[in-house]
Amino acid sequence: MNFIEKNTLSGARQKIANYIHPTPVITSSTFNQLTGADVFFKCENFQRMGAFKMRGAAHAMASLTNIQLAKGVVTHSSGNFAQAVALSAKLFGIKAKIVMPENAPRVKIEAVKGYGAEIVFSGPLIQHREDEVHKLMEREGLTFIHPSNDMDVIIGNSTSAQELIEETGGLDVLISPVGGGGLLAGTALAAHHFSPQTIVIGAEPVNVDDAFRSLRSGMIESNAKDAFTIADGLRTTLGNVNFPIIKTYVNSILCVDEEEILQAMWWVWERMKIIIEPSSAVAVAALLRYKEQFHAKRVGLIISGGNADIKSLAG
Amino acid sequence: MNFIEKNTLSGARQKIANYIHPTPVITSSTFNQLTGADVFFKCENFQRMGAFKMRGAAHAMASLTNIQLAKGVVTHSSGNFAQAVALSAKLFGIKAKIVMPENAPRVKIEAVKGYGAEIVFSGPLIQHREDEVHKLMEREGLTFIHPSNDMDVIIGNSTSAQELIEETGGLDVLISPVGGGGLLAGTALAAHHFSPQTIVIGAEPVNVDDAFRSLRSGMIESNAKDAFTIADGLRTTLGNVNFPIIKTYVNSILCVDEEEILQAMWWVWERMKIIIEPSSAVAVAALLRYKEQFHAKRVGLIISGGNADIKSLAG
Repeated sequence: MNFIEKNTLSGARQKIANYIHPTPVITSSTFNQLTGADVFFKCENFQRMGAFKMRGAAHAMASLTNIQLAKGVVTHSSGNFAQAVALSAKLFGIKAKIVMPENAPRVKIEAVKGYGAEIVFSGPLIQHREDEVHKLMEREGLTFIHPSNDMDVIIGNSTSAQELIEETGGLDVLISPVGGGGLLAGTALAAHHFSPQTIVIGAEPVNVDDAFRSLRSGMIESNAKDAFTIADGLRTTLGNVNFPIIKTYVNSILCVDEEEILQAMWWVWERMKIIIEPSSAVAVAALLRYKEQFHAKRVGLIISGGNADIKSLAG
Repeated sequence: MNFIEKNTLSGARQKIANYIHPTPVITSSTFNQLTGADVFFKCENFQRMGAFKMRGAAHAMASLTNIQLAKGVVTHSSGNFAQAVALSAKLFGIKAKIVMPENAPRVKIEAVKGYGAEIVFSGPLIQHREDEVHKLMEREGLTFIHPSNDMDVIIGNSTSAQELIEETGGLDVLISPVGGGGLLAGTALAAHHFSPQTIVIGAEPVNVDDAFRSLRSGMIESNAKDAFTIADGLRTTLGNVNFPIIKTYVNSILCVDEEEILQAMWWVWERMKIIIEPSSAVAVAALLRYKEQFHAKRVGLIISGGNADIKSLAG
């Protein structure tokens, strides 16, 4: 069964080429010694606006009709996807409205405004922001782009793993963090079509292990309302578009605790000299914790982004 | 006048190829917008042990005779050169002793020990460490490698700019930080032989502006004993081997203050997602402060290293 045609995936790379950066792949002999694996870090922290989300947002916009483009788009996010939609909209020359909770961090608000998008504040609950999105869709004819549960976003996200597979010329394992499921689903589709022998694994904070439980139960599970993780991009849950893909192509989900996430993040900052965000450190931590599984394997690791609050995380 | 033959410089790349990493060149469209220049960051922060010093240390060892190799080497440094000599000696399989002041930071001591070199503590004054070095040379027949005032070290350092010139295919300007002068001299030699139209500029903290004053007076100047800069790698002064090269080939030295250094470092960490050390931020800060000079120019910038104390600098 194919969720999407192979040439739709490879075609996505051309569709977004003018809007994204191809990102470098880096290696660390010290990390390889530490893990016993041959690890390739795909650095989406060097992507425009600092995260892989730019790929999905750009591809979703590149897939809109002229009428849709003329009317503009709307999304809800207080994180990287908000910035990705804002920057993409600027590059496409279209209108974007971002629904954010009133209590969103000021720095995130400023970043979105800096790209020229309009922010619409909503109440703190999911219901509030969804109501706001529906109002904007109806009143202004805006097209909604979901941050992770949208096939065009997933296809856009797949381009990172496509580049990684092409550059490394063959991997035994691909690991990506899993939050809303859009990156993991895209990574899995890329592996299925371009490197079918590669095992795809998701990495998740044990504090919000909904994807782990979803894969076990076969149904989309949720997290406790007060569940906390420092990897704030991963607090969301899977959706009906990406879960079937994940269920079909993902081998397993590995969970790590908060201390492991912090230690892994710190190790990469200090030793590899690159800033990765806590969500990306979840994948690094999974490799470190379960290194026996990866012994002597060629492992691709998607570093999803670099938008970390360095000062507060270093404190 | 040639201080060194062109093929000696290019030959150095082969001599050290097995001991160092070729480092990536990265660009930032945001930084280019900010400065109006076309800037190429040569990332020695991704070099082995985290700094360009590995190039000079490896080249100095590769230039030793078998008898010298059999007896071992000695240097004095409490910074990156200590680690560079320690790691190089490990790779060459030779003995290394590093003279360090008793009050050297514990983390530096541990790093050197981790590479297997022996640390010899001396008193805090320059005279103390030099006495200690002489004792070791006489007693044990060790060969002394100076961190910056040694032609083989300078030639090794030149390989960074050689790679940068080759990869970018032509630069209007090359900027490197200047402390002891070994990196700036190597950069100047590389430009002279491989890109003679390129203007070479040094960047220095105004608090320790000895190189700036030396270039003006034509003599090696020193700094006040209590002079402080956060760019601790740049507190040293020029030497009789590198100063003639700098005097001949370097166009000018640009000075920046402590606040500019910190702001530049912070900008690179946050926006470019790479960790650079304060000494490297000096060159970034010089470009930012004097950006009118670099308008529409192709500028190569040597990011000398990434061994920053992230926690204390972020605090």
